[in-house]
Amino acid sequence: MKKITIANIPGDGIGKEVVPAATEVLNTIAAIHGGLKFEFTEFPWSCEYYLEHNQMMPDDGMERLQDFDGIFLGAVGNIKLVPDHVSLWGLLIKIRREFEQVINIRPAKVMKGVKSPLANAKDFDLIIVRENSEGEYSEIGGKIYRGEDELAIQNAVFSRKGTERAMQHAFHLASKRKKRVTSATKSNGITYSMPFWDSVFEDVSKGHPEISTDSQHIDALSAFFVTHPERFDVIVASNLFGDILSDLGAGIMGSIGIAPSANINVNGKYPSMFEPVHGSAPDIVGKGIANPIGQIWTAKMMLDHFGEEELGNTLLDVIESVTGDGFLTADLGGKHSTKEVTDEIINELKKID
Amino acid sequence: MKKITIANIPGDGIGKEVVPAATEVLNTIAAIHGGLKFEFTEFPWSCEYYLEHNQMMPDDGMERLQDFDGIFLGAVGNIKLVPDHVSLWGLLIKIRREFEQVINIRPAKVMKGVKSPLANAKDFDLIIVRENSEGEYSEIGGKIYRGEDELAIQNAVFSRKGTERAMQHAFHLASKRKKRVTSATKSNGITYSMPFWDSVFEDVSKGHPEISTDSQHIDALSAFFVTHPERFDVIVASNLFGDILSDLGAGIMGSIGIAPSANINVNGKYPSMFEPVHGSAPDIVGKGIANPIGQIWTAKMMLDHFGEEELGNTLLDVIESVTGDGFLTADLGGKHSTKEVTDEIINELKKID
Ligand SMILES: CC(C)[C@H](C(=O)O)[C@@H](O)C(=O)O
Ligand SMILES: CC(C)[C@H](C(=O)O)[C@@H](O)C(=O)O
Repeated sequence: MKKITIANIPGDGIGKEVVPAATEVLNTIAAIHGGLKFEFTEFPWSCEYYLEHNQMMPDDGMERLQDFDGIFLGAVGNIKLVPDHVSLWGLLIKIRREFEQVINIRPAKVMKGVKSPLANAKDFDLIIVRENSEGEYSEIGGKIYRGEDELAIQNAVFSRKGTERAMQHAFHLASKRKKRVTSATKSNGITYSMPFWDSVFEDVSKGHPEISTDSQHIDALSAFFVTHPERFDVIVASNLFGDILSDLGAGIMGSIGIAPSANINVNGKYPSMFEPVHGSAPDIVGKGIANPIGQIWTAKMMLDHFGEEELGNTLLDVIESVTGDGFLTADLGGKHSTKEVTDEIINELKKID
Repeated sequence: MKKITIANIPGDGIGKEVVPAATEVLNTIAAIHGGLKFEFTEFPWSCEYYLEHNQMMPDDGMERLQDFDGIFLGAVGNIKLVPDHVSLWGLLIKIRREFEQVINIRPAKVMKGVKSPLANAKDFDLIIVRENSEGEYSEIGGKIYRGEDELAIQNAVFSRKGTERAMQHAFHLASKRKKRVTSATKSNGITYSMPFWDSVFEDVSKGHPEISTDSQHIDALSAFFVTHPERFDVIVASNLFGDILSDLGAGIMGSIGIAPSANINVNGKYPSMFEPVHGSAPDIVGKGIANPIGQIWTAKMMLDHFGEEELGNTLLDVIESVTGDGFLTADLGGKHSTKEVTDEIINELKKID
């Protein structure tokens, strides 16, 4: 029996609704497999936890997570309770950084039965590889003066190691796909970090002559996501650009509610973390209408990560057959509840067994 | 006779095709007006100029521009001849900075006859006010070490003065429109500059109780441009975020070939500069198929700037009647040439006379 231990952190808002749904799906899949078992342990760390403890996780929080095989996160943040930069840097970004989850992978594709807002959404199927540990999200910066002379400075920090690592990962993924990597840059406007990014991309490209490459400025690239998303295969981007492109990717798919992501620890020292792209959506909490697909597709990425790619692909096929059959939550223009969509996915999975 | 002196800088590529077209339109408009005259002086500064002179403009270039009422720019850049950061920082960005054109205004709206890539493009009509002098496009940064330890740092610099100025401009524009300002932020991920941006936005908002406001993180905001662009009126954004949003705005309109912009000097010390959002498009140079509408709509923004808003609105109406009648260049799915579209606009203008 292959046992995989998972730390569940539902977090805030709809995270608490979709994590249980996806956990049920994972248990179903383990049962189908027969020789696979997930062991889930839940941690209640969230903005509500913060109100009680004045921190997003206990002092020994990271130690307690350390020995799990993976972390399955819902959503973090509720500005009505805790400022975003406190909740996110105290939990989500803290885990990404301290567990050296230096790569963030975010696919976007046309999904059966899901209406893209694009009129001519050709069959796009792309993956964004986001550098997840440095770049524009640095902890270096500050302010000087108060009043009319006040000035804030933020350093974007790009190391060759961090940049190369993200790019190598992108080339690796592309070698198993359409063999095409696009680099998101802005070297015409941002004149130190981005020309550096370009030069590392050039170096890394040379090591992969079988992969075709191009560079696009982030402004033009964002527009291309709207006009020609089918042109792309793997896109490698800095922390900020990857953040923007992955929400755009979710947007052109039809809803942020379906987009998954994986935060990968590549050196094997710490667990990786799996979380949907969407946030905690406080406005729809408790209504039972949150889209579970972002979290369930995220479970598929977790299956892939643990070497169960066949099951992962089966799960994605089932998700698409269910959306294709019209089981859609409100964000996709449907009327089905979180539970109805989840149950249908579980039913379809059981049929395969 | 009201005389307006304009420095024309066609620049590179299709800039040399669309600037003459829009200049002809402006001359037609001046004739219709009767009491208005544009006096154009052309400067050949471009990447070709660089190859001969090793600089994008002569040493006294800025002095020669200084006394014009306005600058009418086509497009700058041709990476086959000169690296982008050299050509752009030697001409476009140099002028923006040295002439203190601290605000960049970029409208995006549904245009008659122009197919948006969005399936349900409701009647969106928005303006992006971009901070144009600081932020992520700073000249501060550098590298340390070579080889595997190499590290590049880029400082984003936000002053209260610069930030406030852009925001005040946005509120001013909104007061003449739908009275709504959205701030583009990323304070959940970028923890020094963006919380500062938010706090300035809060302060400036307080001075405009009649304007409704909201803040959106740039990732979510980018997705909203695809799913709900009709929600926005005026959006105020940093240099980088404004750059990204304005290309997205052009993308959802249907083509980057139609989007205009104005770089505004607000202290009256130097001329303002007017340029379309598109680049020099080396791939279509010489074919006579460049879309002149970006440059002609830019001419409308120039008319507005010089107090001729009525004529400016007439020009935009005429542009829309011409696109509405199906006079479209290839980027919009049509077969008309630069000259045919321009001539039709001129003909329609003459009918109004
Ligand atoms: C060419 C480039 C430097 C420029 C910018 O980023 O400002 C362009 O994209 C624009 O938006 O005017
Ligand atoms: C919540 C926020 C800090 C986070 C990010 O920007 O990384 C989110 O947008 C994401 O993409 O996971």
